[in-house]
Amino acid sequence: MQTTPFLGELIGTVVLILLGNGVVANVVLNQTKGNNGGWIVITAGWAFAVTIGVFVAKAFGSVDAHLNPAVTIAFAVATDDYSHVVPYITAQLIGSVIGATLVWLHHGPHWAVTNDSGAKLAAFSTEPAIRSVGANLTSEALATLVLILGLAGISSKHLGELAIGVGPYLVGILVWSIGLSLGGPTGYAINPARDLGPRLAHTFLPIPNKGSSNWDYAWVPVLGPVIGAVVGGLLIRWYAL
Amino acid sequence: MQTTPFLGELIGTVVLILLGNGVVANVVLNQTKGNNGGWIVITAGWAFAVTIGVFVAKAFGSVDAHLNPAVTIAFAVATDDYSHVVPYITAQLIGSVIGATLVWLHHGPHWAVTNDSGAKLAAFSTEPAIRSVGANLTSEALATLVLILGLAGISSKHLGELAIGVGPYLVGILVWSIGLSLGGPTGYAINPARDLGPRLAHTFLPIPNKGSSNWDYAWVPVLGPVIGAVVGGLLIRWYAL
Amino acid sequence: MQTTPFLGELIGTVVLILLGNGVVANVVLNQTKGNNGGWIVITAGWAFAVTIGVFVAKAFGSVDAHLNPAVTIAFAVATDDYSHVVPYITAQLIGSVIGATLVWLHHGPHWAVTNDSGAKLAAFSTEPAIRSVGANLTSEALATLVLILGLAGISSKHLGELAIGVGPYLVGILVWSIGLSLGGPTGYAINPARDLGPRLAHTFLPIPNKGSSNWDYAWVPVLGPVIGAVVGGLLIRWYAL
Amino acid sequence: MQTTPFLGELIGTVVLILLGNGVVANVVLNQTKGNNGGWIVITAGWAFAVTIGVFVAKAFGSVDAHLNPAVTIAFAVATDDYSHVVPYITAQLIGSVIGATLVWLHHGPHWAVTNDSGAKLAAFSTEPAIRSVGANLTSEALATLVLILGLAGISSKHLGELAIGVGPYLVGILVWSIGLSLGGPTGYAINPARDLGPRLAHTFLPIPNKGSSNWDYAWVPVLGPVIGAVVGGLLIRWYAL
Repeated sequence: MQTTPFLGELIGTVVLILLGNGVVANVVLNQTKGNNGGWIVITAGWAFAVTIGVFVAKAFGSVDAHLNPAVTIAFAVATDDYSHVVPYITAQLIGSVIGATLVWLHHGPHWAVTNDSGAKLAAFSTEPAIRSVGANLTSEALATLVLILGLAGISSKHLGELAIGVGPYLVGILVWSIGLSLGGPTGYAINPARDLGPRLAHTFLPIPNKGSSNWDYAWVPVLGPVIGAVVGGLLIRWYAL
Repeated sequence: MQTTPFLGELIGTVVLILLGNGVVANVVLNQTKGNNGGWIVITAGWAFAVTIGVFVAKAFGSVDAHLNPAVTIAFAVATDDYSHVVPYITAQLIGSVIGATLVWLHHGPHWAVTNDSGAKLAAFSTEPAIRSVGANLTSEALATLVLILGLAGISSKHLGELAIGVGPYLVGILVWSIGLSLGGPTGYAINPARDLGPRLAHTFLPIPNKGSSNWDYAWVPVLGPVIGAVVGGLLIRWYAL
Repeated sequence: MQTTPFLGELIGTVVLILLGNGVVANVVLNQTKGNNGGWIVITAGWAFAVTIGVFVAKAFGSVDAHLNPAVTIAFAVATDDYSHVVPYITAQLIGSVIGATLVWLHHGPHWAVTNDSGAKLAAFSTEPAIRSVGANLTSEALATLVLILGLAGISSKHLGELAIGVGPYLVGILVWSIGLSLGGPTGYAINPARDLGPRLAHTFLPIPNKGSSNWDYAWVPVLGPVIGAVVGGLLIRWYAL
Repeated sequence: MQTTPFLGELIGTVVLILLGNGVVANVVLNQTKGNNGGWIVITAGWAFAVTIGVFVAKAFGSVDAHLNPAVTIAFAVATDDYSHVVPYITAQLIGSVIGATLVWLHHGPHWAVTNDSGAKLAAFSTEPAIRSVGANLTSEALATLVLILGLAGISSKHLGELAIGVGPYLVGILVWSIGLSLGGPTGYAINPARDLGPRLAHTFLPIPNKGSSNWDYAWVPVLGPVIGAVVGGLLIRWYAL
């Protein structure tokens, strides 16, 4: 069989979401080993989820290993080449639904023993600490802008070179940094696929007493990151970062 | 004297289990300095146990530094070369029994001051948060599959190249990721030797008030990782990862 | 548009302060996701803030990526070249005011729900655990001296080579070390811009019930780091580190 | 002025102890920012103390950067070259006394506000969780043996090459691992200078209500690490690790 960029983006995003949403499930679901592990566990888990997701994406054929529509958009804006946007984002969305489904599968008996439906949703999608659309959009856009500028810094010249040597580790550190420092208000989606795909999975999966999927908030962790990505992409382009 | 792959696998696994099971003992046994250190301590401890175990295995002659029958099996399936399976797994099992015995020795007076026999067993072998054979097998298989795909990604071409440069550190990060994100339901054995050898040690060592070794669960953290390893090995082979 | 060392220092410091002060805001403000995350979260957040700030500074044209007047002064003393001192420190101060303003923006609704005005100030500037001018000055000078000697060690030959390869990561580890080990008495400003710029921002920003900006303490986290920097710079020069 | 191996060992050990004992002071002394930070803070702090100490030692002229009589002894046994033993250990002991004195200075007002004399001693020297001479000696010897074998693995060929590239970081990870996993029973001195020098400092420094320096235990964290070092050195030599 053949590895391809599409397959790499897809399987890389599966692993990203399985590990990333997995750590949230581990911390918020009842009776898990990591229950109530705290913010350091959540943010470290997401950091390494990105690192491992990038490595796996690369193995399956994606040199770029974006795993995030915001990164794909920023890269397209930066290079004025939009040819990857549709296939990559398609792969990322499919991967994120599969990844969230695997999180659900992986934590089999823990859904039924968790009463808090908000906790269960948290293992899929983000929910701001305080709902305030303007502020939440700003937070997501700003955190994503830091992501894009950080990627530009780590890869020196454009985002395509990220997956070399210790690059994937440093990208994980970047995401750890954003989580620790900027994750407080909205839970740092900074990735439309990371929020949208799992929210879809939450909607159709048979989770006991799952409560609302909060679709009214779903556009914020999509639009916010896209705004940050476009601004970041323009900065990379204008300054030839 | 001579370093050999067999010796490397054996001593590397001794160190892996001494450090890996050691961190669990530190957290769960009474009156230790790290008592009740939390999930971040457990998962970081296991991560670095793998890193250091790989370095030591390499020093004693194992270029592969698998330290894990699941990795050995995945590698064999991926390359269709089964010649290492029996010697490596033998070395890993012997090493894991010795490592667990050293954990017991190292924590000398702490066994007697710990009343909880489940905590004492946890310093040897895994026990799922919620017993449910199908779900537990699935969790172990899935987490091991992520391990194998992550190793493939880190090493680019097949598992044999892991022990180069910062490779052992990145493998530790991979295991940290799996622990943080997927360790919730079963405590992530993801390594048959890591569970079986220490359980054997638990059975024969003179631990005060030790309680059952829970042999009825012992097959799950063996079979689950083997399933994940075979699937992962086939993916590596089919896709030439 | 043009990247320049001035722009690099400025934008790098924006990112440094946004991430560094951001983690404090996340931990001390009410109802954030990271509220009460503990010292490991604070220190890890500042560590990676430095790493990412250095990467971004480099991308925007600052090869040196000091982001800290103390580092700029130490470098000038070490090399007897004072030509960068005024422009770099100007850029760092401007950047730190902007960064602190973004921290305020990013945490929109969380300022109003936090009653403790000391906590709110902590998200901007440092305040010693116990006020004692001589002891606080000593702590800041000593911690900054460790910073300068550590930088010398990491960069082998003078501070200009820091921004190469994994250098920015190791500088983050250095700052993590200082935070964990020497941050207890004063909260480790170790950077005059990090304290002064945000204190200015605290003074003029419309924060609800913000309380005093504690300007009477403001000179300590400026003078202390400068003393440490001069001593460190002289040691680098005398010993040709 | 001249950098020399003696100066490097001395100043490197000053930094090692300032940062290493510093993190303990931060966690155990009252009213510090890091008070009660937990085992993850202690062990991360010691890990990075080693990393930064090695970098600084290197900058001041010590290519070996042992900072630990046990490492010096192991290296001597491994290579059958005892010429460095006396000067290095002398430098390490002097450095450790100075480092502990700086920890005392750095935490100025916090000594008087801490009532627990055991906590104050902990910021200088180790004390086992449970006193039991044979078990404590065994724990120290075993943890030091892991240190020596880990160093051999990281440096591939003998201990002298440690201070290259990311080597100091990996040595920090090794010490983090040992702390997390094997630090439970005795607080992992694994370094005679780390325990003896600070204990001396504790004896002569004017610390308010300091209590006993527990000199009756002082020989254990000296002899234990030496035993582990000799065994490790012999293994390195016999197996040409």
